[in-house]
Amino acid sequence: APGPEVPRALCNRAGRFGPTRLPSANRAPVPRMLAVPGPALRPRGPMAAFRRWKEQRLARADESRKGSVDEAIAGLVQLLNGQERFCTTSSCAGRLLLAQAPAPGFSGYEVQKKNCSWLMVTHQICAKEDVMTALQKATGDTVFKFEPFILHVQCQELQDAQLLHSVAIDSGFRNSGITVGRRGKIMMAVRSTHCLEVPLSHMGKLMVTEEYVDFLVQIANRKMEENMKRIDRFYNCLQLALKTELSMSNSPHEMIQKTHSVYTHRRKRKPDKEPGMCTSSDNKEESETEDDPETNLNFFC
Amino acid sequence: APGPEVPRALCNRAGRFGPTRLPSANRAPVPRMLAVPGPALRPRGPMAAFRRWKEQRLARADESRKGSVDEAIAGLVQLLNGQERFCTTSSCAGRLLLAQAPAPGFSGYEVQKKNCSWLMVTHQICAKEDVMTALQKATGDTVFKFEPFILHVQCQELQDAQLLHSVAIDSGFRNSGITVGRRGKIMMAVRSTHCLEVPLSHMGKLMVTEEYVDFLVQIANRKMEENMKRIDRFYNCLQLALKTELSMSNSPHEMIQKTHSVYTHRRKRKPDKEPGMCTSSDNKEESETEDDPETNLNFFC
Repeated sequence: APGPEVPRALCNRAGRFGPTRLPSANRAPVPRMLAVPGPALRPRGPMAAFRRWKEQRLARADESRKGSVDEAIAGLVQLLNGQERFCTTSSCAGRLLLAQAPAPGFSGYEVQKKNCSWLMVTHQICAKEDVMTALQKATGDTVFKFEPFILHVQCQELQDAQLLHSVAIDSGFRNSGITVGRRGKIMMAVRSTHCLEVPLSHMGKLMVTEEYVDFLVQIANRKMEENMKRIDRFYNCLQLALKTELSMSNSPHEMIQKTHSVYTHRRKRKPDKEPGMCTSSDNKEESETEDDPETNLNFFC
Repeated sequence: APGPEVPRALCNRAGRFGPTRLPSANRAPVPRMLAVPGPALRPRGPMAAFRRWKEQRLARADESRKGSVDEAIAGLVQLLNGQERFCTTSSCAGRLLLAQAPAPGFSGYEVQKKNCSWLMVTHQICAKEDVMTALQKATGDTVFKFEPFILHVQCQELQDAQLLHSVAIDSGFRNSGITVGRRGKIMMAVRSTHCLEVPLSHMGKLMVTEEYVDFLVQIANRKMEENMKRIDRFYNCLQLALKTELSMSNSPHEMIQKTHSVYTHRRKRKPDKEPGMCTSSDNKEESETEDDPETNLNFFC
């Protein structure tokens, strides 16, 4: 039974990858770059306050269950935190899990909340046997899930969040979005539309065949692999965007001139784009007159 | 097989519910309210340009497959478009569908894109028989999906998007987010974390029992019902927020005084909140010092 929606516990709060204590990661430490001038959507905020807050934040203990950043995104988290204007606050590289809630009817909402458990969780691809073994422990209702990459990044300025959002969309994370608190806190969430959520047992009884579990695990593993490709694409697109921005910072006047209301422009159709192609922010001027990434991709189904 | 990610075709572009031609809907037409003063995150934009753009937009033909706004959200769409500062651009109340992609190996990405089809789609709850009948038409790989409510609203100012985002989060749509284009176009997307995506057949062969389909349909129907409750909650919260804002517009000075950097405040824990409770924006001052709605709800699983 689905019961109430299960909020997602993230794997880490990325506390260990701040610029104050850089770990030995796969990739070399990235030099900090200066924030470049750009469209000023609000007055330049108190940078020193953000820096102080970030230092405190990154010094805090990792409060997640796992207690550390997932290996597959360690380089990305480091790249972001190496930039003065960004601070990652939580993340999960993507995972496969078998969650169990007590059977409905025997418990109310509050009880379910406390008793929900994971019978299996992995950040790698998995084998049919892993799921079958976990299913033997089932006493309630189980659901097999693929949960894609998710990342929250606090940003110094709105334009920093815009840059990150644009990179996320280009990399295929189409449910990404910005949150702006009433006091001006700016958060960018990288989210995918990828999903797989399959109920497998009811009151401890397996509702599908072993052959089906095998079929399902293959599909889930392909989604995990596609997820990893997107993370790589995100890393590469981010590097490119930061480089492009740095080279553009030599002509700030030109950039500011581009900032005028979208409503004064005639709307153009977005041209077809190769899937997986990483466009630089320059090429995106045209597509941004469109409504949103979701309606732009209406052609498929 | 999952194949490439399936972008979501939305049911409508809400073109029929603009203030220029209000339809006879369940709820009485809502009077337009003036935008109230508030935290100015960017200079007040060209309001006249937004109004002109909105009029053109709402006069356009509905380009969706369905060609009209889903009945369950007609009142909500009308409430939003009755406000000068908002313009809905696409929406779907929520649906159950059986999608089919050709079996992998027989076709590449491009072919799949063209040949993907829906064997069943409904915006109501459904019966096992509906799914079984649709499954008889399967020749490739089918996936049964529940897709929750989704809504895109273009906003005049960033503070308008913030108001809407806050209402969406309070109503349970935790994956909602704002997009800000480089030219200043502000889009707010209302999204849920709800999901159900279950592969059912492979190369035309049904991989599960009829009993399982019955079990699955019950779960999907419960999700549809919960989805409808949230839409109602969103409608009610939005009405309350607009009312609260209107009454606060009598003391604009007080509101502006509240706008200062979040980083100068000590961070407090968010108090436990009744699920489904609709808090007014005043009560939210405290919770907004937290990172993001997802990490705030880590207690569950």
